[in-house]
Amino acid sequence: MAREPGALAIDAEEVQRRIEDLGEIGNDPEAGRWLALYSPAWEQGMALVRGWMEQAGLVTRVDAVGNLYGRLEGREGGDAILTGSHIDTVPNGGRYDGQLGVHAALAAVAALKRAHGQPRRTLEVTVICDEEGSRFISDYFGSRAIAGFATAAELETCRDRDGVTMAEGMRRVGLDPARLAEARRDDVAAWIELHIEQGGTLEAEGLDLGIVHTITGMREQRVRVLARQDHAGVTPMDARVDGMAAAADMIREALQIARRMGRPAVCTTGSIHAEPGDPSVVPGVVTFTQDMRDADAARYAELCQTIAQANQAAAERWGVRLEVETLNDHAPVAMDAALQAILQEEASRAGYRWKSMPSMAGHDAEIMAQRWPSAMLFVPSHEGRSHTPAEFTPIEQVIPGVRVLAAALFRLAYAS
Amino acid sequence: MAREPGALAIDAEEVQRRIEDLGEIGNDPEAGRWLALYSPAWEQGMALVRGWMEQAGLVTRVDAVGNLYGRLEGREGGDAILTGSHIDTVPNGGRYDGQLGVHAALAAVAALKRAHGQPRRTLEVTVICDEEGSRFISDYFGSRAIAGFATAAELETCRDRDGVTMAEGMRRVGLDPARLAEARRDDVAAWIELHIEQGGTLEAEGLDLGIVHTITGMREQRVRVLARQDHAGVTPMDARVDGMAAAADMIREALQIARRMGRPAVCTTGSIHAEPGDPSVVPGVVTFTQDMRDADAARYAELCQTIAQANQAAAERWGVRLEVETLNDHAPVAMDAALQAILQEEASRAGYRWKSMPSMAGHDAEIMAQRWPSAMLFVPSHEGRSHTPAEFTPIEQVIPGVRVLAAALFRLAYAS
Repeated sequence: MAREPGALAIDAEEVQRRIEDLGEIGNDPEAGRWLALYSPAWEQGMALVRGWMEQAGLVTRVDAVGNLYGRLEGREGGDAILTGSHIDTVPNGGRYDGQLGVHAALAAVAALKRAHGQPRRTLEVTVICDEEGSRFISDYFGSRAIAGFATAAELETCRDRDGVTMAEGMRRVGLDPARLAEARRDDVAAWIELHIEQGGTLEAEGLDLGIVHTITGMREQRVRVLARQDHAGVTPMDARVDGMAAAADMIREALQIARRMGRPAVCTTGSIHAEPGDPSVVPGVVTFTQDMRDADAARYAELCQTIAQANQAAAERWGVRLEVETLNDHAPVAMDAALQAILQEEASRAGYRWKSMPSMAGHDAEIMAQRWPSAMLFVPSHEGRSHTPAEFTPIEQVIPGVRVLAAALFRLAYAS
Repeated sequence: MAREPGALAIDAEEVQRRIEDLGEIGNDPEAGRWLALYSPAWEQGMALVRGWMEQAGLVTRVDAVGNLYGRLEGREGGDAILTGSHIDTVPNGGRYDGQLGVHAALAAVAALKRAHGQPRRTLEVTVICDEEGSRFISDYFGSRAIAGFATAAELETCRDRDGVTMAEGMRRVGLDPARLAEARRDDVAAWIELHIEQGGTLEAEGLDLGIVHTITGMREQRVRVLARQDHAGVTPMDARVDGMAAAADMIREALQIARRMGRPAVCTTGSIHAEPGDPSVVPGVVTFTQDMRDADAARYAELCQTIAQANQAAAERWGVRLEVETLNDHAPVAMDAALQAILQEEASRAGYRWKSMPSMAGHDAEIMAQRWPSAMLFVPSHEGRSHTPAEFTPIEQVIPGVRVLAAALFRLAYAS
């Protein structure tokens, strides 16, 4: 058995510098930061990480959809242990969500390689091309391609705000959409992802790490309220079929339902649009999104159903018609028990304070877990800020995550 | 004294044909109909009406901002009696709001000219270039330019959705923004405007005409809710500063306040936007409009004040900051008593069923009334539909308005 990794030299300054260097890419003085799939900024970010992988002596390759791997071949061959996260961001996003998992994986694997040389089993630092799906509304596309769940159809139907299809986006960065199926892997042993918690729990409770037991159930839907367009002055209040009145009631009621259910149930309306959109016209159509989550399967079902009933009741009260389009719907997903145990043991052995917790954000791990043993390790998020440029985790709170990740990878790839 | 106009020959078929011909202009298969100030469609519409004026033997001219006049010179000179309405529409608008007043004025003046020749006092059919202000958010710009209230500054600050200023828009249609002041008139005797009611009252009550006593007070404001952007999954409901939760409460409460006050109080939110606008991000900023109206000065003040207080109370409840921008604020405006009496007498004399009523829509008459005796005559709107392609008034319900308008113009320009 190889040496214990306790004394691993993790270069904290390098990790910090890389957070900043990658974080500089994709800044737009007007729109804020956005690293959108297949954008020039995304290409630039991917190239930067690939350079770091090569500096660390990893063998790099980009797959058919743009996922990036840095491979450290194991002596005994076999399936690869993948560790990493995603590089893309939401519009006006930060530089920790996803990207920190890439920095951590690279720092852990590079340190293991420096200290222990070639592993018995293969390790691959993995950079998922698209998790947020914020450009094409194509959530988890990168991991779905790896798991073999992505479809050729979506490359033609998913479009960005300018009408560009994913397939067109791929061609622009030199990828061939016809080769989608080649991104599928059947040689994976496990997936381990470090990520910021994105909530305020770890910080508030003074904990170093969270070890995820379940990834939340999550339903995202687009609700279209079909009402009657009228003049804002001459149609009396009692004679209106006002799309905005109905939508405001639905939005408010859904938020109250989540609030009444208590933690961790959440509901969010992040996007809304009225047509025709003139201040002096009662809107005939109002479209808004609802994002509903709970980590427990029964509570998740109850949350979604209660909100659907409330929407319908409001529609009847206001005399409007509803069209509800499901954007995505994922039941809660459990993480692998054996991998959770390894992370828990290594966190305890190193003396860190940790807890077992659900992830209320969706992650690539929920896709990977459908095919392979998967686990997630959380580090604190300052003030729980996430999906904003204010995302922040001090480097002293990053390093414990990198150490526990490295210790777990050591056990999986070197010691067993 | 000239002959009575009772037997005036109004060409109903021609009026109907012109409604349709002008209504064909500006159709867009995607965006619906929009006759926007200084757009190619607007230029086409203006040219069409100018041709009709010339066919009727009126002397035409376009003023410095694009208002169009067709003049029938009076024998005795003096100030001109103006009659007409506006040609521009809201996005996805109809072909009656504004445009019917142009058709009616032209039909009335042409019939008077055919039957009675030159009047004693000058008549001018007037086509206001921009009343809705839907392209540049420049409400009543045409009549404000005539009244001398438009400012050079707004030509540079008002921009359309593509960032084009009004001044640039003017130059594109061959107008010189530097000549704005030349549009001001000091030779007007009166303004009489026929318009569709835009509400359902006349139709529901089986009336032919409405004679306006007051134009509603109207406040349009843009409310910006400054909250905190967060992740839609990991920020518990009880830890959020959710801009959408606050906005939905404000919108709902304002609509309830108008409903509780009863007719004719109204409140509308026709436009809303969330930033960053991602379904999985709790919005940090939500911006929406509120349009509040009542025809009575005291009730109008109460409505606006109660809604302002409710917005503030909701902001405090949700811990958000508010920025409220006034887009426009017009107190109720009374129509000229003597002109109302003439319209009422002529409507009764012709045997039409009419009522005295407020206008709950803003009109150019409220601008003109600040300088000159002004009056408005309403014809029914089918099902009260307005600011929609579904606007409709059957020609049999248009002609009574044209007859009463002609009778009033006869009394003002020929008989006195």
